[in-house]
Amino acid sequence: MHDFEFYNPTKIIFGKGKENLIGKVLKDCGIKKVLFVYGQSSIKKIGLYDRVISSLNENGIQWVEHGGVKPNPVLSHTREGIEKAKKEKVDAILAVGGGSVLDEGKAIAVGAKSDVDVWEYFHRDKGITDALPVFTILTLAATGSEMNGYAVITNEETQEKLSIGSELIYPKVSILNPELTFTVSKEYHAYAAVDAIAHTIEWYFTCTVCPNLENRLVESIVKTVMETTEKILQNPTDYDARAEFMWAATLALNGITRTGYAGGVYVNHMIAHSLGALYDLPHGACLSIVIPAWMWWYKDKNRKQFDRFAKEVFNLPTAEEGIKALKNWFSKVGAPVSLQDGKIPSSDIDKIANHVYNTTAKLWGLDKIYTVDKIKEILYLALRSNTL
Amino acid sequence: MHDFEFYNPTKIIFGKGKENLIGKVLKDCGIKKVLFVYGQSSIKKIGLYDRVISSLNENGIQWVEHGGVKPNPVLSHTREGIEKAKKEKVDAILAVGGGSVLDEGKAIAVGAKSDVDVWEYFHRDKGITDALPVFTILTLAATGSEMNGYAVITNEETQEKLSIGSELIYPKVSILNPELTFTVSKEYHAYAAVDAIAHTIEWYFTCTVCPNLENRLVESIVKTVMETTEKILQNPTDYDARAEFMWAATLALNGITRTGYAGGVYVNHMIAHSLGALYDLPHGACLSIVIPAWMWWYKDKNRKQFDRFAKEVFNLPTAEEGIKALKNWFSKVGAPVSLQDGKIPSSDIDKIANHVYNTTAKLWGLDKIYTVDKIKEILYLALRSNTL
Repeated sequence: MHDFEFYNPTKIIFGKGKENLIGKVLKDCGIKKVLFVYGQSSIKKIGLYDRVISSLNENGIQWVEHGGVKPNPVLSHTREGIEKAKKEKVDAILAVGGGSVLDEGKAIAVGAKSDVDVWEYFHRDKGITDALPVFTILTLAATGSEMNGYAVITNEETQEKLSIGSELIYPKVSILNPELTFTVSKEYHAYAAVDAIAHTIEWYFTCTVCPNLENRLVESIVKTVMETTEKILQNPTDYDARAEFMWAATLALNGITRTGYAGGVYVNHMIAHSLGALYDLPHGACLSIVIPAWMWWYKDKNRKQFDRFAKEVFNLPTAEEGIKALKNWFSKVGAPVSLQDGKIPSSDIDKIANHVYNTTAKLWGLDKIYTVDKIKEILYLALRSNTL
Repeated sequence: MHDFEFYNPTKIIFGKGKENLIGKVLKDCGIKKVLFVYGQSSIKKIGLYDRVISSLNENGIQWVEHGGVKPNPVLSHTREGIEKAKKEKVDAILAVGGGSVLDEGKAIAVGAKSDVDVWEYFHRDKGITDALPVFTILTLAATGSEMNGYAVITNEETQEKLSIGSELIYPKVSILNPELTFTVSKEYHAYAAVDAIAHTIEWYFTCTVCPNLENRLVESIVKTVMETTEKILQNPTDYDARAEFMWAATLALNGITRTGYAGGVYVNHMIAHSLGALYDLPHGACLSIVIPAWMWWYKDKNRKQFDRFAKEVFNLPTAEEGIKALKNWFSKVGAPVSLQDGKIPSSDIDKIANHVYNTTAKLWGLDKIYTVDKIKEILYLALRSNTL
């Protein structure tokens, strides 16, 4: 068991209709005016926008709107939000949407309390020392952003997709109503499932110290994500399945499944972020392309964990069979499992490998292990669905 | 999945030698003077007392001592601590010890910021509105007090053992160094294991809504507690086993294993608290006496969960076999499994049942289900080790 610190001060309010509490929650925290951050039209279609506005009005909370956040949230729109937050002197961010909306909300929270351009924080040139408090209502369970201190933003100009992390951007309160996810399409649910699984298995497979307790927690989450996803794809309004999936996705990246591991790295996220930046593919789709290939490439470096995964999750005897089973499961639920599936030509592999190496690999200090050649080896394993 | 709120703002600092950070931690939180609460001589024997004092001195933190906390912490000593905290105008509690020391520290934290007698909060006549911040260094993993908002105190005069619960008494920071538990005796480790298991299975067995995700988390903790306990009894200085046990015991009662369950109650704790109050037996020993008997009495009321437990934890086909296996395991590790083992005569059963009914059952609103007669049925099942 490796030394660790664990701190997660986000309050979760979970259940049916809880979004109607948002005005009261803000009022109880002394908030007077929020920047109301959201995405496209979906929160209006399901009536959530109106319910939020009613709750804000009833509790005397002023708001300024910042809609139009993109699925891979971009820096230019984040900068607009920061300008608005500063000009309107809001004292909190209210982000209503999926992980992208929450992430942009967090980045705005940082930028609004800073005199330097927010992108400097993503390059880790500058440490975050202040941020507006963030409140969230989640409409798509996947990224875990509702209960962690991370945010990922894409700089469209430089084609970089980078993250920030700080205790200051843990949401104060996140409201999770599984009913709000009933309208998530089958396609996007599959990507969400891949993302949640990825968040737990990254450290599980790359650990050098791998406590059984943590292994069991990870396996519990993976099994729950798979089980509930199959139910959701059958019946998108299965409340209990949506609810268990939602909470599992939160626990997958709230820090609890990482405690005690040594050596863990987010290598699949590293490669997937480049695919996201270069091709604007959904994050979960980038991960499902990368994960089986990376697993195959890495399996003998941590054989015990890969064998364990096969046995505990799929009741299969070998690492190889476990990897194939996970890949087949991704395919079955509708996630792409190769560059070909993602319509990325093999002629792009050099470009992608260089992008990974020069952006995230260097920034995360993984460039010693993941050289351009190594990344290419992994990408070639991801070339076609039948490569493995 | 049942609606829930989850909020746990305790920061955990986990690992070897981390107790030496305590002075800096307090200083960083702006603390100038603490009430240093501890138990008997054990923290002096292992050199912890000296290390804490050094760290406080190095960081300019003043302290007032309040040693002598008993294993079942008592109200009179708590009141002395409150007097001292008020008189010396400390601005925080530093509790160094096991769950009993932490619980007394929390009760002092409440009493020191109140004008009424602290026992009124235990009778829930009065809600907690203020408390001194609490910091802890844990030396015995069992109760989970290091990461929750509960404290249990015994009133020696009235023979009541009652609890308080408040967001205000979550420790700000808890330091967990598994090495500090190396000297915990085999006997007390067994009680600790029973306590940690009890914390997770109480809601698991009494739930009316029982999500698979939570069931899996509970089973993960139970399996880890059992696995590591067997290693610890073989080798008390097995760091990894002590560490995994320690963290599992924390997770067992930090709220995470309760999210999403409906209907859960702490019925075994309810009965065990009376045994603790009447006979001053260790808490874990009271629980190991009660649990198998209660499980047998209750099993058909939630058959699915009991069958599941047997299968997942012991790979056994029926609830009955699972209960017997858990009872045998308690016995094997050295915990008593009957009133006879605890040297409590059958002639006391009436007295105990009335005590349970008139103290905790009424206070916790469980008196409708757990009448005196029902409690007697359970206690008779606990009479002798071979009763089941």
